[in-house]
Amino acid sequence: MTSEQSPARVSIKALPDFVGQRVKVCGYVDAIRDQKRMQFVVLRDRDGAVQLVHTKGDDALTRALSELTPESALSVVGQLVSAPAAKLGGIEIVVEEARICGRAETPLPIAIDSSLEMKLEHRQVSLRSPQQQLVFAVQTTLEHAMREFWIAEGFREIHSPKLMSTFSESGAEAFPVKYFGTTAYLAQSPQFYKQMAIAGGMEKVFEIGPAFRAERSFTSRHETEFTSIDMELAWIDSHHDLMALEERWLAHALAVVAGRHGADIFHHFGIDVVPPRLPFPKLSVAAAHEMLRSAGYAPGDTQDMDSESERRIADLVKGETGHDFLFIADYPVSARPFYHMRHADRPELARSFDLFWGGLEVTTGAQREHRYDQLVSQAEERGYAIAPLQSYLNFFRYGCPPHGGMGVGLARLLMRLLGARSVREVALLSRTPTRLSP
Amino acid sequence: MTSEQSPARVSIKALPDFVGQRVKVCGYVDAIRDQKRMQFVVLRDRDGAVQLVHTKGDDALTRALSELTPESALSVVGQLVSAPAAKLGGIEIVVEEARICGRAETPLPIAIDSSLEMKLEHRQVSLRSPQQQLVFAVQTTLEHAMREFWIAEGFREIHSPKLMSTFSESGAEAFPVKYFGTTAYLAQSPQFYKQMAIAGGMEKVFEIGPAFRAERSFTSRHETEFTSIDMELAWIDSHHDLMALEERWLAHALAVVAGRHGADIFHHFGIDVVPPRLPFPKLSVAAAHEMLRSAGYAPGDTQDMDSESERRIADLVKGETGHDFLFIADYPVSARPFYHMRHADRPELARSFDLFWGGLEVTTGAQREHRYDQLVSQAEERGYAIAPLQSYLNFFRYGCPPHGGMGVGLARLLMRLLGARSVREVALLSRTPTRLSP
Repeated sequence: MTSEQSPARVSIKALPDFVGQRVKVCGYVDAIRDQKRMQFVVLRDRDGAVQLVHTKGDDALTRALSELTPESALSVVGQLVSAPAAKLGGIEIVVEEARICGRAETPLPIAIDSSLEMKLEHRQVSLRSPQQQLVFAVQTTLEHAMREFWIAEGFREIHSPKLMSTFSESGAEAFPVKYFGTTAYLAQSPQFYKQMAIAGGMEKVFEIGPAFRAERSFTSRHETEFTSIDMELAWIDSHHDLMALEERWLAHALAVVAGRHGADIFHHFGIDVVPPRLPFPKLSVAAAHEMLRSAGYAPGDTQDMDSESERRIADLVKGETGHDFLFIADYPVSARPFYHMRHADRPELARSFDLFWGGLEVTTGAQREHRYDQLVSQAEERGYAIAPLQSYLNFFRYGCPPHGGMGVGLARLLMRLLGARSVREVALLSRTPTRLSP
Repeated sequence: MTSEQSPARVSIKALPDFVGQRVKVCGYVDAIRDQKRMQFVVLRDRDGAVQLVHTKGDDALTRALSELTPESALSVVGQLVSAPAAKLGGIEIVVEEARICGRAETPLPIAIDSSLEMKLEHRQVSLRSPQQQLVFAVQTTLEHAMREFWIAEGFREIHSPKLMSTFSESGAEAFPVKYFGTTAYLAQSPQFYKQMAIAGGMEKVFEIGPAFRAERSFTSRHETEFTSIDMELAWIDSHHDLMALEERWLAHALAVVAGRHGADIFHHFGIDVVPPRLPFPKLSVAAAHEMLRSAGYAPGDTQDMDSESERRIADLVKGETGHDFLFIADYPVSARPFYHMRHADRPELARSFDLFWGGLEVTTGAQREHRYDQLVSQAEERGYAIAPLQSYLNFFRYGCPPHGGMGVGLARLLMRLLGARSVREVALLSRTPTRLSP
């Protein structure tokens, strides 16, 4: 256990390049076999696992290894040797020094077959599985590929405030915050501020950040706090420009993920990531209704898409085109926020769209109404008080170009990408009406 | 004003490649000269400005241009011609069609010499200046360069919750949120959760996101909501590993900014961005005190650094080394949060550091205490109740490697980088105890 000159840490994945050398590896104790004459430990780091061996004796090292507990954080120096019989890559490390940096209590609070709720409660342990490590490797690659696309297209990154003096989306519930003698609200989306950035001449903006919805939902796709991916674009002609942008953006990001993690995703989740081909199928709500009726199904809502209609139309389009993605456009005005622009020739329809992936809504977007008078009249038509909206409405008084954008749920994308059953399987932590910790 | 086949929009900066062609440009009305026989308009987009000309007649176009107001959003199609006398690049556009997409009210609510408060109040207008456009171009490049560094070094991106059941930093004030019959608090930093990610085996993580401090501060460097850049790293030997990481990271990001925006920054802000050389100067608090005393100044606080000492030591080091950056390390335990690790041989000192840029604190970092028993005892020593901290303390019960990290203020970096007098000059929007809108 004494330390002479210690080599630099090596990732376990990189060990095959170091056979015959003295190496240092660090990670968690994955398994322990303390036999009569030999001690075997499997050590796992973020990228792999390796077997450690020690011939027992009356030494400090033997005593240290015999005190090991599963999941303890361990740093080891030893000789890396070829061991054709070892299952983990045909190599093993003959331990010379071992340091238990963080001893794990026993028993561990969760096992592989624990419930999702238990795994969320003990996230510092459940995160360690190779599947969960892959989730965040994929998340990192996905977001970086999105940003590379945006940067190449001249988008600017913004960070909009989450504390607001008013609601950002009418209809949804907002969390109130005590703010120096007044009440602030948590932003339900960066909607208002990305529009302000557009009015402010930034032309193309993006943000990835938290959004908050004070809704008593307990579904597999809703959280009270979630990561929202937002972009907004000036000088568009219609919402079709936005759909054309989003499909290129998503296809790029998914192609990068497939290239970098495709084999691992298939190995751990059994999913074959195939980047979607362009263009994605697109249907107006009216065309979707007609297609459903032709297939013998009468939509429950004759104007809007109810969830059963969404599921069925996704199946129909998948059957006809083989495509997992589907844009539905031109929703009735009544089903969308007041600030969505209306079709000039069909004022009952909003220039809006949703994107579905395997029947799951992953995006809501629209061209926005940028003309002050028209926007005020659309707010009044809903019966909204103008005063609380004035700070937002002012964005459009001093020259604002036509524009639109969309919001995309990060966890929903990951859920579909990795075949998860819930956004909670692919988020760092969960926030629901009954969960605020850890 | 009739529209035949309209060409695709061209960025004004790209116009020199289109001389002799019919072009479409979109932007804001920067200036108007409505003369007896000619109408001149300067149109400005995100990247440049160009002159538009029209020979007056009894036509709709003449009437449209005569109704223009400053800062209106305008889309124009016309013939791009060489005009050696024109100041803006020796080109101008002979207008064929003009569409006022968003007419600006008059008068505008702010002018170039308006106060910062007025500019914050009307951010959708003040953002349009070339200086402000550059701020966000630089922000975008800076963050992307940071992320490229992290990705190349194997860091994973996380999004930690901003709603917490307890405070994330003791000492600082937290905003309370009404949360389904209980009280949540807004995260003062992602501190606890980046440590959870480390305990969860992610080894290297980063996050750029909002942080909230309910403090009645009205200084040029404090906001109640700000963008925090955070990273955390496992398997370190000491806080010196963190300083070595940060200086490489910052030098890389600043070199990318200098390369891409150096000329523009000099033009608009008079600042010559020189990427800092490595290593940055580093002093312990004790060494800084000694240096101050040798220079004839007795620090007011004999253990910690007060702000006057910080300013003076930055000047001294700048004078001696020419370096604008300075790490100060090894603060007294009493001046740091309870979770900072202590020096084994000097338990009154924390393994902590701050980074100063031109005397402004831009980073706080430390190795964290990862041993459960020691952490509990450090919390108890401060007189903290353990129950509210238990969810955090649990992160360290099931094996956690040695680790540490830092938090960096994005707006403070931009403030120094662009020579701004306040973080509010380089943030999208401001949040102070008295400002919640726009």
